[in-house]
Amino acid sequence: MGLAIGVDIGGTKIAVGAVSNDGAVLSRHDVPTPSSDASALDDAICQAVLRVAEGAAVDVVGIGAAGWIGLESGMIHFSPHIAWRDYPVAEHVSQRLQVPVILRNDADAAGWAEYRFGAARGAKVALCVTVGTGIGGGIIIDGELYRGNAGLAGEIGHMVIRQGGRKCACGGVGCWETYASGSALVAQARKWMKSKPTASGRLVELCGDRAGDLTGSMITRAANEGDALAAELFEWLGRRLGTGLGSLAAVLDPSVIVVGGGVSDAGELLLSPARASFANSMTNAPSRPPIVRAELGTAAGMVGAADLASRELSGGAQTQRTPS
Amino acid sequence: MGLAIGVDIGGTKIAVGAVSNDGAVLSRHDVPTPSSDASALDDAICQAVLRVAEGAAVDVVGIGAAGWIGLESGMIHFSPHIAWRDYPVAEHVSQRLQVPVILRNDADAAGWAEYRFGAARGAKVALCVTVGTGIGGGIIIDGELYRGNAGLAGEIGHMVIRQGGRKCACGGVGCWETYASGSALVAQARKWMKSKPTASGRLVELCGDRAGDLTGSMITRAANEGDALAAELFEWLGRRLGTGLGSLAAVLDPSVIVVGGGVSDAGELLLSPARASFANSMTNAPSRPPIVRAELGTAAGMVGAADLASRELSGGAQTQRTPS
Repeated sequence: MGLAIGVDIGGTKIAVGAVSNDGAVLSRHDVPTPSSDASALDDAICQAVLRVAEGAAVDVVGIGAAGWIGLESGMIHFSPHIAWRDYPVAEHVSQRLQVPVILRNDADAAGWAEYRFGAARGAKVALCVTVGTGIGGGIIIDGELYRGNAGLAGEIGHMVIRQGGRKCACGGVGCWETYASGSALVAQARKWMKSKPTASGRLVELCGDRAGDLTGSMITRAANEGDALAAELFEWLGRRLGTGLGSLAAVLDPSVIVVGGGVSDAGELLLSPARASFANSMTNAPSRPPIVRAELGTAAGMVGAADLASRELSGGAQTQRTPS
Repeated sequence: MGLAIGVDIGGTKIAVGAVSNDGAVLSRHDVPTPSSDASALDDAICQAVLRVAEGAAVDVVGIGAAGWIGLESGMIHFSPHIAWRDYPVAEHVSQRLQVPVILRNDADAAGWAEYRFGAARGAKVALCVTVGTGIGGGIIIDGELYRGNAGLAGEIGHMVIRQGGRKCACGGVGCWETYASGSALVAQARKWMKSKPTASGRLVELCGDRAGDLTGSMITRAANEGDALAAELFEWLGRRLGTGLGSLAAVLDPSVIVVGGGVSDAGELLLSPARASFANSMTNAPSRPPIVRAELGTAAGMVGAADLASRELSGGAQTQRTPS
């Protein structure tokens, strides 16, 4: 039996790994994303897959990418940070490598990995939330990735929390991810660095006094060191996150809510205020799901994509296939 | 084969009907709801069922009621307008009538009826929204009513659209239904009757110059007659409704969104602004679901409850049973 390879395509890098059938990453290779050229991106994916395979046979490839992927077409219709518009990336990679390839939304793939091997293992209804540049969602119901009517389900970052609010990459306005993502965190930090200069010493230091260079991981680092302003920023973000999780719980009634993505590296600094804010919603309900941290870190996307590919393409999985 | 009886318990009346297996109401009887006495309510339900049956054998009874109904317990844990707290109403009715009885959320039952016999017939993913005093939801996925982990799924009226906003009966604050339901419509009308006295002549007339007596159906009547202020009120409500539907579509990616409940009697006066506001969300998406009006009117709850009961209890339905 050959390898299952998972590919996680981000705005700046492509992470590729060979994944065992129990979710372990056997080998991994990361390369920069040629984000402005779809054809160069095809090349980069194929080369990285071959490099990770190291000459071994490849059974299946699963690709996870931010964007809207058609349920029937298998094409990526739109991606916020890649030069893809109605682009058949899976078909191209499949033709070049002569292996079956599936394409899934990156947050769907990460959620599937948490359901299979991580913090949502075996949950009846798993809601996995990836908080990074934006906010993505993966919903698993009774052992199946829930993809909705057209493949667009779980676009939870685009719940509208403010009518006439901030403009979003999705074309809408007032989306949750413009208020509660890593990008929102950094924007708020820059605002507070101006308005609260005496408190922002550590953040100023970390970004070399160039607010434009400040990143989410710098804020996480400062918060983990005990910096008060950075901790306050995660408190601010966590409360906004928890409010949206309350909305999602009202709609989906999940067994568990798993929070992953780069911003979740802040751990309890983020989750504790999120839980406090979440607890303000539907307080009369007889039960509420726990909010826990994701377990698979940066490997979630590739692990989930590879596992979904194995399950759907190789027929080797024990679990039932989705009827088409 | 005996009758399937559907019972729809509202805050002011109980509607009971014998329902055929193609969703037709064969006979119907409405009685007032003894909302402050759970035991008197048991009596009223049993008497109304027997009256509708007219001596014929009853196979199953399905009850729909506003409230949170446990997936495992079958009990109603909380209801906004009935004296039920962890109350086994289905068990009581079943013992008294000696027939199998199921209890479901009223919006779940109404949504199921629209999926089986109405505007969402055969939809892969149906989202049915009931706009009345509050906002309820029924979600049907691949032919199954989606109830979530604990039976609380589809509580869409409790999506939080304003952090720290209006207090809601659910115990939370800022819930969608406090801004976009029939109650919100009436509250806004009373506000405008004060602030726009010259425009509110027809509404003043209809409520006998007692703003406290104004009802949603008076506003619908005025709007249908062509009253400008009433039409403006539905425009105002429709936009708020459409924004929330945008959030739900982002999460669930439904095939169709069906809008029912008393407020939907305004038809296009409500749906047209809802569609306009909905169209502002995820504008880059390759497809968006249509928003259509419910078809079953006030019978939806009883029809859905009876059909769910037939399907789950009598084994007579062609469709597959939910594994327990």
